[in-house]
Amino acid sequence: MNYPNGKKGLKNTSKVPSQDTKECSKIQYGKRGMKLEEEIDQSNQYFRIENIAVIHKKPTPIQIVDVHYPKRQKAVIKEAYFRKPSTTDYNGVYNGRYIDFEAKETKNKTSFPLNNIHDHQVSHMEQVSNQQGICFLLIKFSYHDSVFLLPFKQFMVYWDRFKSGGKKSITLQEIERDGYLIPIQFRPRINYIKIVDQLITMESEALK
Amino acid sequence: MNYPNGKKGLKNTSKVPSQDTKECSKIQYGKRGMKLEEEIDQSNQYFRIENIAVIHKKPTPIQIVDVHYPKRQKAVIKEAYFRKPSTTDYNGVYNGRYIDFEAKETKNKTSFPLNNIHDHQVSHMEQVSNQQGICFLLIKFSYHDSVFLLPFKQFMVYWDRFKSGGKKSITLQEIERDGYLIPIQFRPRINYIKIVDQLITMESEALK
Repeated sequence: MNYPNGKKGLKNTSKVPSQDTKECSKIQYGKRGMKLEEEIDQSNQYFRIENIAVIHKKPTPIQIVDVHYPKRQKAVIKEAYFRKPSTTDYNGVYNGRYIDFEAKETKNKTSFPLNNIHDHQVSHMEQVSNQQGICFLLIKFSYHDSVFLLPFKQFMVYWDRFKSGGKKSITLQEIERDGYLIPIQFRPRINYIKIVDQLITMESEALK
Repeated sequence: MNYPNGKKGLKNTSKVPSQDTKECSKIQYGKRGMKLEEEIDQSNQYFRIENIAVIHKKPTPIQIVDVHYPKRQKAVIKEAYFRKPSTTDYNGVYNGRYIDFEAKETKNKTSFPLNNIHDHQVSHMEQVSNQQGICFLLIKFSYHDSVFLLPFKQFMVYWDRFKSGGKKSITLQEIERDGYLIPIQFRPRINYIKIVDQLITMESEALK
């Protein structure tokens, strides 16, 4: 693969910011790339319009503490807190099959840190996987402007390594080997459904 | 069917209240029945624990306007508003298949009013249906303490009737005829997966 050089790497991995929070403005991104969430949203919109798949981002879970009702129609939430999501951010349907994934972006040049994936998200993905759902991570290396689909089963190898005291990250090399690079296109920006098709084909061949 | 008598019917239909809002306290329920959302949550928990299905309620969509950051870890939302959901409330996976439904409760004795189903929810269900997702409504008549599964395709007949100037509701009789009564059990409280199984069987027989 051909990666551009001469850029300074940043170490932190950031949760894909939610559309409905103001956090977006707090996170810095490279100049070249769009934010991963935006790219996925645009792609999902394309998939819906073209009747290819129906996949949505789940709303950010909020713990509401205080609501005022000045009028019946316009309740104002006056105190609320962000909650940790108990599932992944995206799910939906493609040709009858259940699709479920988490999207993460890192500014790290050579590896994807595992510390911003929550335990309960992993157990959710495990449950989904046991129910024959199609489950994966979309990982963006913003420095290289490259997005990978890493199937959950491959991810689990590195998660288990991490949890048994090993490396706290997955190297880019490992992701290149075990995942699928998704070419960035114009429309849809991230055609992850194309890779899902490959996964379904491989799955049905394995069953033969 | 055997319905108890002697109760006063209430006319309004209420949106299943969200766990994470305070609205719950604003809605009155009959003494006998649990709230439908609670019953579904308990059932979904059972399905997850028993590895039967992985189905979650989506968080309530919130438009956040103002967030304070007194500490990094504990952001406080100071102003936010409820948004109309663009999808249904529940989705997940059962044996590889995508499941999607909306849950509504009515205190009406003889019919289910259609005015609390949004247009965009119906178009979402239409999209899901076109993608071979398993899509339905769970409708609870709290007066009778009875819960029905109404497949989306059957629902659409009445929605179209409503949209072309006809009846603004589906009668209980119509729901009894076109839907499936879900017996209330101890565990899981609402075994809608049993009906989903029937739908899948009928679907595969129709394809033969």
